[in-house]
Amino acid sequence: MDFSLSPTAQSLSQKIRTFLEQHVFPQEALYYQQLGGDSPHWRQWKVPPIMETWKAEARAQGLWNLFLPPHGSTGLSNCDYAPLAEIMGHSPIAPEIFNCNAPDTGNMEVLYKYGSDEQKERWLRPLMDGRIRSVFFMTEPDVASSDATNMQATCRVEGSEIVLNGRKWWSSGVGHPNCKVGIFMGVSDPDGPRHQRHAMVLVPLDSPGVKIERMLSVFHGYDAPFGHGEVSFTNVRLPLNTLIGGPGRGFEIAQGRLGPGRIHHCMRVIGAAERALKLLCERASKRTAFGKPLVELGGNRDIIADARMRIDMARLLTLKAAWLIDTVGIQGAMSEISQIKVIAPNMAQDVIDHAIQIHGGAGVSDDFPLAALYAYARVLRIADGPDEVHRNLIAKLEWKRQGLA
Amino acid sequence: MDFSLSPTAQSLSQKIRTFLEQHVFPQEALYYQQLGGDSPHWRQWKVPPIMETWKAEARAQGLWNLFLPPHGSTGLSNCDYAPLAEIMGHSPIAPEIFNCNAPDTGNMEVLYKYGSDEQKERWLRPLMDGRIRSVFFMTEPDVASSDATNMQATCRVEGSEIVLNGRKWWSSGVGHPNCKVGIFMGVSDPDGPRHQRHAMVLVPLDSPGVKIERMLSVFHGYDAPFGHGEVSFTNVRLPLNTLIGGPGRGFEIAQGRLGPGRIHHCMRVIGAAERALKLLCERASKRTAFGKPLVELGGNRDIIADARMRIDMARLLTLKAAWLIDTVGIQGAMSEISQIKVIAPNMAQDVIDHAIQIHGGAGVSDDFPLAALYAYARVLRIADGPDEVHRNLIAKLEWKRQGLA
Amino acid sequence: MDFSLSPTAQSLSQKIRTFLEQHVFPQEALYYQQLGGDSPHWRQWKVPPIMETWKAEARAQGLWNLFLPPHGSTGLSNCDYAPLAEIMGHSPIAPEIFNCNAPDTGNMEVLYKYGSDEQKERWLRPLMDGRIRSVFFMTEPDVASSDATNMQATCRVEGSEIVLNGRKWWSSGVGHPNCKVGIFMGVSDPDGPRHQRHAMVLVPLDSPGVKIERMLSVFHGYDAPFGHGEVSFTNVRLPLNTLIGGPGRGFEIAQGRLGPGRIHHCMRVIGAAERALKLLCERASKRTAFGKPLVELGGNRDIIADARMRIDMARLLTLKAAWLIDTVGIQGAMSEISQIKVIAPNMAQDVIDHAIQIHGGAGVSDDFPLAALYAYARVLRIADGPDEVHRNLIAKLEWKRQGLA
Amino acid sequence: MDFSLSPTAQSLSQKIRTFLEQHVFPQEALYYQQLGGDSPHWRQWKVPPIMETWKAEARAQGLWNLFLPPHGSTGLSNCDYAPLAEIMGHSPIAPEIFNCNAPDTGNMEVLYKYGSDEQKERWLRPLMDGRIRSVFFMTEPDVASSDATNMQATCRVEGSEIVLNGRKWWSSGVGHPNCKVGIFMGVSDPDGPRHQRHAMVLVPLDSPGVKIERMLSVFHGYDAPFGHGEVSFTNVRLPLNTLIGGPGRGFEIAQGRLGPGRIHHCMRVIGAAERALKLLCERASKRTAFGKPLVELGGNRDIIADARMRIDMARLLTLKAAWLIDTVGIQGAMSEISQIKVIAPNMAQDVIDHAIQIHGGAGVSDDFPLAALYAYARVLRIADGPDEVHRNLIAKLEWKRQGLA
Repeated sequence: MDFSLSPTAQSLSQKIRTFLEQHVFPQEALYYQQLGGDSPHWRQWKVPPIMETWKAEARAQGLWNLFLPPHGSTGLSNCDYAPLAEIMGHSPIAPEIFNCNAPDTGNMEVLYKYGSDEQKERWLRPLMDGRIRSVFFMTEPDVASSDATNMQATCRVEGSEIVLNGRKWWSSGVGHPNCKVGIFMGVSDPDGPRHQRHAMVLVPLDSPGVKIERMLSVFHGYDAPFGHGEVSFTNVRLPLNTLIGGPGRGFEIAQGRLGPGRIHHCMRVIGAAERALKLLCERASKRTAFGKPLVELGGNRDIIADARMRIDMARLLTLKAAWLIDTVGIQGAMSEISQIKVIAPNMAQDVIDHAIQIHGGAGVSDDFPLAALYAYARVLRIADGPDEVHRNLIAKLEWKRQGLA
Repeated sequence: MDFSLSPTAQSLSQKIRTFLEQHVFPQEALYYQQLGGDSPHWRQWKVPPIMETWKAEARAQGLWNLFLPPHGSTGLSNCDYAPLAEIMGHSPIAPEIFNCNAPDTGNMEVLYKYGSDEQKERWLRPLMDGRIRSVFFMTEPDVASSDATNMQATCRVEGSEIVLNGRKWWSSGVGHPNCKVGIFMGVSDPDGPRHQRHAMVLVPLDSPGVKIERMLSVFHGYDAPFGHGEVSFTNVRLPLNTLIGGPGRGFEIAQGRLGPGRIHHCMRVIGAAERALKLLCERASKRTAFGKPLVELGGNRDIIADARMRIDMARLLTLKAAWLIDTVGIQGAMSEISQIKVIAPNMAQDVIDHAIQIHGGAGVSDDFPLAALYAYARVLRIADGPDEVHRNLIAKLEWKRQGLA
Repeated sequence: MDFSLSPTAQSLSQKIRTFLEQHVFPQEALYYQQLGGDSPHWRQWKVPPIMETWKAEARAQGLWNLFLPPHGSTGLSNCDYAPLAEIMGHSPIAPEIFNCNAPDTGNMEVLYKYGSDEQKERWLRPLMDGRIRSVFFMTEPDVASSDATNMQATCRVEGSEIVLNGRKWWSSGVGHPNCKVGIFMGVSDPDGPRHQRHAMVLVPLDSPGVKIERMLSVFHGYDAPFGHGEVSFTNVRLPLNTLIGGPGRGFEIAQGRLGPGRIHHCMRVIGAAERALKLLCERASKRTAFGKPLVELGGNRDIIADARMRIDMARLLTLKAAWLIDTVGIQGAMSEISQIKVIAPNMAQDVIDHAIQIHGGAGVSDDFPLAALYAYARVLRIADGPDEVHRNLIAKLEWKRQGLA
Repeated sequence: MDFSLSPTAQSLSQKIRTFLEQHVFPQEALYYQQLGGDSPHWRQWKVPPIMETWKAEARAQGLWNLFLPPHGSTGLSNCDYAPLAEIMGHSPIAPEIFNCNAPDTGNMEVLYKYGSDEQKERWLRPLMDGRIRSVFFMTEPDVASSDATNMQATCRVEGSEIVLNGRKWWSSGVGHPNCKVGIFMGVSDPDGPRHQRHAMVLVPLDSPGVKIERMLSVFHGYDAPFGHGEVSFTNVRLPLNTLIGGPGRGFEIAQGRLGPGRIHHCMRVIGAAERALKLLCERASKRTAFGKPLVELGGNRDIIADARMRIDMARLLTLKAAWLIDTVGIQGAMSEISQIKVIAPNMAQDVIDHAIQIHGGAGVSDDFPLAALYAYARVLRIADGPDEVHRNLIAKLEWKRQGLA
C-alpha cells in the first residue's frame, strides 16, 4: 500500500504547475481578450496567438502529448498521467497548451491503437504536432444517447465506399478553426450481434454532405474557439480506407477509448475543484462582513473542510481506477471507472457552487473562472454516460460481487 | 385554516395562465429570434417587437401592474398577487409582459409610497405605462454587499444639489434600450445612527458622470435586453428634488421594498421550478432507453415525487409569508421572509438541475428554457441577501422565540 | 388564504400545552421510575400510577378523546385536531394521557364508524374510557408488508364461526397490561376482487390460539408498557359477530383509518422535532467550548435555521393535507397524505439527529427524550407504508396531474 | 502508487474472515442467548462462555493482539492492521475475540509505549492475555468534552500519593465482569502550559472512592457485557507509581493514543457498513413487492451504487491516513485523521440507515445486527471528538495549506 506519486509523475506535475503559474495564470485575461470579447459568430472564431506561443514553449519543455499510453520506452501509465491531468484541470484553457485536450486525446489514442499506417500518417501526425484539431461524432439529438444501442446514424459499405448518414450533436471542438477531421460512429452491421453493429470512420470535415447546422451553448456559453456543434451527414461518401479497425468494431474501440478518457476527465474536474477551493479560501480571507473575514462566519469553515475531504476522496478513487487499468486492465476496472464518473463531477459541481456563493455576484460572472469550471463539471455529469447509467452499472457489478447475480 | 386562493387570485391566475399558453409559449422562440441570435454588443440590444404586442394585449385584458399594493379599491394583497407571480415565473420573459418585472416593480412601489408628486409625474407614470424601464443601484463591487453597512457610495447634499459618487454593479436592467432612470442608494449622513445614514436618489441615466462601464454575464449569459451593468458615478450633480423621502431614510425605504419583492422573487422561482418539473415529466415520458421510457428507470420517480413535495412546501411557506405581511406587516414576517428567500431558490436550483439532467445535453442548451431558469434560481441565492445572511437572521429570531436572546 | 388556527384549536392547544408544562414535563422522570428501571420482563410490565392520575386530570379538564372525528355537535375537524396532536408529540408519553394514542385512536375510529352496536358497547366504550387498550394486527414477518396484497394471514368463515390463522408482528401496544382486544386483518375472500379480499375481525387477546411469541425491540428499546409484539394465531375460532363491517371490507376500512391516522402521526412527529429543536437551542446556549457558547461555533446557527424552516414547512404541508381531508375527503388528499408521510418523519429524524449531536453522549442516553423521539421518527419511516411506497404513489399522481397517465 | 494490500495483510485478513464465517456468524445468536436475554441488571452481567472458546481458538491461530504497533520483528504497520480492523467491524462482538477491542487496545498501547516495567507487569501482561479488561476515564458529564481544556477532574500529587477527584462518564467497558483497571485523565498541573496540565493515572477499579454511579444507554441499549458507565472519584488516593509517564504528560500521551485508535474505529465502522450493504443486498434480492424483488424497485439500485462508492472512498481515505502515520507520523497525518473521523461514521450511519429501511421493521429489531451497528456508527460521530471539532481542524489545516494562516 503506497499512496505516493512516482518520481516521474512528481517531476512532471511540478513542471506543469510551474508552467501554469509562470505563463498561463497571469495571462488568462489576455487569452480571452485575443479570443474576442464581442461574441463573434462562430465562423469568425480564431485561435488566440498566445495559445500558439504557449504550445511552442510547452513542447520545448517536453510537456507535450503526455497522455499517450505506455509504448516501449515512452508513454506514462494512467497512474502517472492522472496527476498531470488534474493540474491541467485548474484552467479550462490549459489542456490544449500541452496537446492534452479532449477530444483530441481520445481520437489520437484510437488512431494510435487501431489506425492504419496511412491513417496515422495523414491524421495522427498533425494531431500529435498540434497542427490540426479533431472531433468525435457520437451523441445524437433524436434519441437518448445514454443507451448506445439507440444510435441511428449509419455508415454502410457500398462497394469500395462507405456512406455516412445521420445527425450528431454535442460534437465538441468542431468549431475550432483548425478542426479538420472527425471520428464518426454509426451502424455498419445492423444485423450483427448487439455489440458488433457499429463502425468508426475518419471523416474529413470538408467532405461533401457534412454540414455544421449550428453551435450549441452550455449555460449560454459557446466554449470558443472549440464549441459544440450539431452536424448533419447526408450521403457522405468516403473511401473504405477511412474505416478504423473494420466494420462492427465500433463498440470495442469506443470501450478502449473510454476508460483512460474518463480518468482524464475526472482528474481534470478534480483540478477544477481544487482551483475553486483555492479561490473560495482566498475570497473568504479577503472579504469582510459584519466585522469579520467571511471565513469566520457561519458554516464557511465546514464548507472548506467538506470540500477538502470530498476532493481528496474523489482523487483517491480516481487514482485507484487508474491503477486498476494499469494493473488489471479496463475490464477489471469497470466499477471503479463508473464510480469516478459519478463522484468526480458531482463533487466538483458542489465545490464550485460553494465557491460561487462565497464570491457573490462575481462568482457567476466572467471575472473568475468559476462559471466556466462549473459548466465543465455540470456537463460532465451528462457526457460520456450520465450519472444514472453509471450508477446502474455499479449496482449490477455490486450485485455480482455479493454473489447474487 | 383555509388554504384556498381567493376568487380574485383564482380568476386572475387563470387568465394569466391562458394568456401564456395562447400567446407566449408558442412564440417564445420568435421572441429570442427577434432579440438577435448573433449576440450583438449590448449597445445594439433592441426590444423584440412581439414584446410590445404582448404588452398591449395584456394591458387590454386588465393584466397590468397587478403587483401594486392595496390602495383604496384597487390593488391586490400579497396573498392574492403571489400566485400570479408564480405563473409569470414559468417563463423568463413573462413578467415584463404584464409590467410586473423586477426591478421596475420595486422601483414603482418605492415611488408609489415615498415619491413626491413631481417624482410620480415624471417617473412613476411612464413606468406604470411600461414606456420606460428603470434600474436599482445598490450592490457594489469592492465590498461584501451582504453586509449593507459596507456600502461605500456617497450622495452628499451640497447646497441645493446632491452629489453622487461611487461604483455599483449587478445593476439589473440597465442595458435595456428603454431604461431611463435609476434609484441610487448611497451614504448621505455618515455620522448618523447606523440605519439612518443612507439616502435614495432618482438619477436619470443620461446625467453627466454616469457611465456604464461594462455588462456582466451570468454563466456566460447577458440577459438581453435587460442586462446587468457595472456603473460608475463620478461627481454626478442632481437637484435636491431627486431625493426620495429625505436624507437618512434609505434603509427604511429599502426595508419596505424588500418584503413584497422577496415574495415576488420566490413565487416566480417556484413557477420556474413548476415549469422545470413539467418539462422533466414530459421528457421522461417521451424518451426511451434500454427499452423503457425514462420515467420507469432508476430513481426517476423518486425525483419527481421529491420535486412535487419540495415545490409544494416552498409555495406554502411563501404564501404564509405573504399572509403574514398582509395581516401583521413586514416586521412580523421577518423570519418567514428570510426563510422563503433561502428555501425557494435552493429548491428551484435543485429541481431545475434534475430537469437538466433528464434532458441530457439538450438541458444545458438553449433548446429549452432550463439553462435560463437555472441561472435565475442560482443568482437569486445571492441577490437580495445571500442564503448565509438569511439563515443567520432566522437563527437569531429563533433564539428569541425560544426565550434565549 | 388564512393560515391561522381556529379559536377552538387555539384554545385547546393552549390548554394541552399548559397541562404538559405543569403536570407532565416536571414528572417525566417519575413516570419512567415507576415504570421500573430494572428492565423487567414484559410480562411484569405495569402501568405507572402517575399515568392514571394524569388521565383523570386530563379527562376532568375535557382534554379527552379529542381525536374523534366530527359527529353532530361534537368532534373536531382534522384541521383543528392536528395542532393538538403536535403538542402531544412533544413527549412520547403524552398522547396516552389524553386517550389519544395510537393504535387506540385508529381502532376507536374504526369501531365508531363501522362497529355494530354490540361491538361498540363491548369494546368502544371501555376504550373511550381509557380502561382498556387495544392493538392492530396488520404487518406480517414473512412478507414485504409494504405491498398489502402480500398478506398471508387468513380469517375464513366456517359456518357460524370465523377462523383466524397466521402470524403478525409489530403489533404495537400488545404488551400493555390493559390490552384486551385487537383488530385482526386477514384474507377472508381469496378469490374476490383485489381490494375486496380482506376482512377485519375483533379478537379478544385471551382467545384460545392467540399467542404472543415475543416482544420486538426498536433500537434495543421495548417501549414499555406498550411494546411491539410478534403474535401467532392458530385456528382461533370466533363468533361471526366479531367481524367488522363484513367480509371483504378490510381494505375499505383500512383506507378510511389511514388518512386521519397519518395526520396524527405526522403532527406528533413534528411536535417531536419541535421538542428536539428546543432542547438543541437550550444546550447550545448553556454549553461552552473554546470560550464560546456552542451556538456561536461553526455551522450551529445554520442548523437551527434549517430546522426551523423544515419544521414549519412540514407543518404547513400536514395542515394542508388535513384541510383537504376536511374539505374534499381522503380521495382528494391522497398525494398530500403520502407527501406528509415522507416529509414529516424524515425531517424529524434529521432534526433530532442534530439535537443528539449537540448534546454529545447525553443525546443518545436516556437523560434526554431524544433517543426515544428519534426511534419514533425512524420507525415512522417504515410504519404505515415505507417512504418508498409513498414516493411512488406521489409520482404516479403527479404523472396524472401532468396529463401523462 | 500501489493500492494493493501487503501479503501479510492479505493473509491475515483472509484468516480472520474465515474465522468469522466458520465460528462466529453461525453462533452470534448463541452468544446473545448466553449473554442473557432477560436484560439482567448490569451487576449480573456475565461473559458468554462461547466468547472464551472463541478467544482461545483465535489465540491458537495467532490471530491475537494484532493491533500492537511495530516493534522489532513483531507488530503490524497501521496500513497492515487497518484491513483487519475492517473485517472485525463486521460484527459488534468480533474485536474482543482477537483481543483487539476498544478501549483495551488504546490502553495497552499506552502501557506499551509509556508504562513502567512494573505497570507493564501488573496490567499490560494480563490485558495482552485477555484475562482482564480495562477502561479509559476521559469524558465528563458537566462540561463540553469536545474542548479538552474544559476538563475538571483532578489528580494532584500530595507527597507520595496522587489524589483523584472528579466525575467521568461514557467510560466504556467499565461494566465488564473482568474490568479491573482504568486509565484516568485529570488536571495535575493547573498552572502549566496549556498542553502540559494533565496526567494519566492507572486506577484499580476496587480502589476506595471509585464508584460506578450508573450505566448509560445508547438508544436504549446497554452494550452488555461492556457497558458505558458514569463513575465518580472521591479522594481516591493512589501511590505515585500509578502515574503514567509523569505529571503534565497527559495530552502528549492522549495524542499518541488517538491517531491509531481513530484508524481502528474508522476501519471497524467501514466494516460495519460493508456488513450492512451485504445484508441490504440479500434482503433486496429475497423480498418481493408488487411482483418484483425489491432491488428492481424505485431508487434501490442507486442506493446500492452510492453505498459502494461511499464505502470505497472512506476506506481509501482511511488507508491513506494509516499510510501517512506509518510514513511521516501522526503530526503529518493530522488533517487526514480528522477527515476519516468525520467521513467514516457519517458514511456508515447513512449506509446502515438505508439497510434498516429495506429491512422494514426487522431492521430496527434485534433480528439483524443493524440496530447495533447503527448505534456504533452514530456514537462514533460523538466519541473521540465530535464531527464539528474535526471539521474545524481540517479547515484550519487547509487554511495553512493555502498559505493563508
